[in-house]
Amino acid sequence: MPTFQRLVRFLAKDGKTYYGDAILPQGVTDISKAKQAKIIRGEIFGKHEVTDRLADIRLLLAPLAMEDVKTVRCLGLNYEQHAKESNMAIPKFPILFYKPMTSLTGPTDPIPIHPMAQQGSGLDYECELVAIIGSPCSSVSESTALSHVLGYAVGNDVSHRDWQIKHGGGQWSLGKGFDGWAPYGPGIVSADLIKDPQNLRIQTKVNGEVRQDSNTKDMIFGVAKTIAFLSQGTTLLPGDVIFTGTPQGVGMGRKPQLWLKDKDVVEVGLEGVGWCSNKVEFAGRTDAKL
Amino acid sequence: MPTFQRLVRFLAKDGKTYYGDAILPQGVTDISKAKQAKIIRGEIFGKHEVTDRLADIRLLLAPLAMEDVKTVRCLGLNYEQHAKESNMAIPKFPILFYKPMTSLTGPTDPIPIHPMAQQGSGLDYECELVAIIGSPCSSVSESTALSHVLGYAVGNDVSHRDWQIKHGGGQWSLGKGFDGWAPYGPGIVSADLIKDPQNLRIQTKVNGEVRQDSNTKDMIFGVAKTIAFLSQGTTLLPGDVIFTGTPQGVGMGRKPQLWLKDKDVVEVGLEGVGWCSNKVEFAGRTDAKL
Repeated sequence: MPTFQRLVRFLAKDGKTYYGDAILPQGVTDISKAKQAKIIRGEIFGKHEVTDRLADIRLLLAPLAMEDVKTVRCLGLNYEQHAKESNMAIPKFPILFYKPMTSLTGPTDPIPIHPMAQQGSGLDYECELVAIIGSPCSSVSESTALSHVLGYAVGNDVSHRDWQIKHGGGQWSLGKGFDGWAPYGPGIVSADLIKDPQNLRIQTKVNGEVRQDSNTKDMIFGVAKTIAFLSQGTTLLPGDVIFTGTPQGVGMGRKPQLWLKDKDVVEVGLEGVGWCSNKVEFAGRTDAKL
Repeated sequence: MPTFQRLVRFLAKDGKTYYGDAILPQGVTDISKAKQAKIIRGEIFGKHEVTDRLADIRLLLAPLAMEDVKTVRCLGLNYEQHAKESNMAIPKFPILFYKPMTSLTGPTDPIPIHPMAQQGSGLDYECELVAIIGSPCSSVSESTALSHVLGYAVGNDVSHRDWQIKHGGGQWSLGKGFDGWAPYGPGIVSADLIKDPQNLRIQTKVNGEVRQDSNTKDMIFGVAKTIAFLSQGTTLLPGDVIFTGTPQGVGMGRKPQLWLKDKDVVEVGLEGVGWCSNKVEFAGRTDAKL
């Protein structure tokens, strides 16, 4: 289905924003290293073409423009070792929650920490394989599910454990949905290039130190199973974004627990896709009484 | 902000779909009784005008077109008496979960019950006041929150208690997110007409029998408090839809518990807004293995 290999959205040196197909030097697969892209003309989820016109990349943006995003779904406890470090049973079905589209940001954007999220403790990272739906699918089987995937990115499901677990009435969304708490990118690698999403190294580094280092083969529900399950009675749409859960090594699972702080730099990386690098930025005070 | 009084979207007798401002006979406030509307031209969340051109309503549709919807948020346990019937503590903060935009349907559409949702038991209704955001808001205070509301509708947060509570890993979204499980309407009454959303009778009938009959003054977090809270660090957008929780009387809270069945007709009504009437329709089998 995709006509591109590595979809990026970027601010170009000419000051304009484009969709493009990233150009990488021979042997390089990390999209964040791209300096140029072939400009894509048209609608990403409709008629479009990769032109021969090159543009110089000044800044990579969130791979999809806000108007092209529909629903952002996330899975919880979807890696065996992570379920174990969380002292939770291996789930029988995928555990689903949502983030709002306003949480999505780009591969180098700061992660803003609103005063509400500076309360309590538990600021944490979660590196995740992100699948982007490219065509409508409803009640599909596992064997055809991957044909509906536009491509894959890496994302960070930024979480505040107090708001997520203690103050949200057991519902995780509140502590994971703040503006900018779902950086992803650095681009979307076509599903044509990643035939098997279940054998990719996935990592997190904080200030250069490796914190998560696993492989998507540890996923409990792989991408195909996940899409088949989520699509039962629920139509997935082009522009739906699925965060597929994180492996072991989150701050909450460490002994002692280790939380993100102001100015930490968090990098999440996925083999064949590349790296996002985002700086934690505590924001000013608010007058609202919580 | 709104230029209309009662926003409807409808199939007209001329076979076309319009946004319009519903015309009601003197003394009638139930939008579902509207036979005509003044056609609205332009963008609902942008420049638009209510014209003098009348159209005959053949069928009321979901009040917002899919392309005008952003994120659908819902609150849980937000009425005191409902928290009590659920044997849950009064929450300290609003409890947030999401539905996908594909769950939204119109005031007379059937509620499709996919085979996955026919498994187990616990098919239930939840009448709710629905607030639609009309202008972007971020970290607003309770005193200014309502100025961002486009208007109000009534909705049904259709739920499958087994999938919601037993099989979703404690996350409610899975059992509430199926296609068509959020009928709402029959239109959107301008916030100019409903100055106080916290004093409206709200009801559910199943096959004509009253099952829920409460008032929005029993809400724990009123609409203004809810919007102020949800907007802390999270930008709410025009087209965001907020289901604000249900009062006591759900099937789960009855003794014995009483679930919806195939062909039941569920009506949800809100004072000053009107009624949605939706028929439960069990759908065919699926081949997918769950």
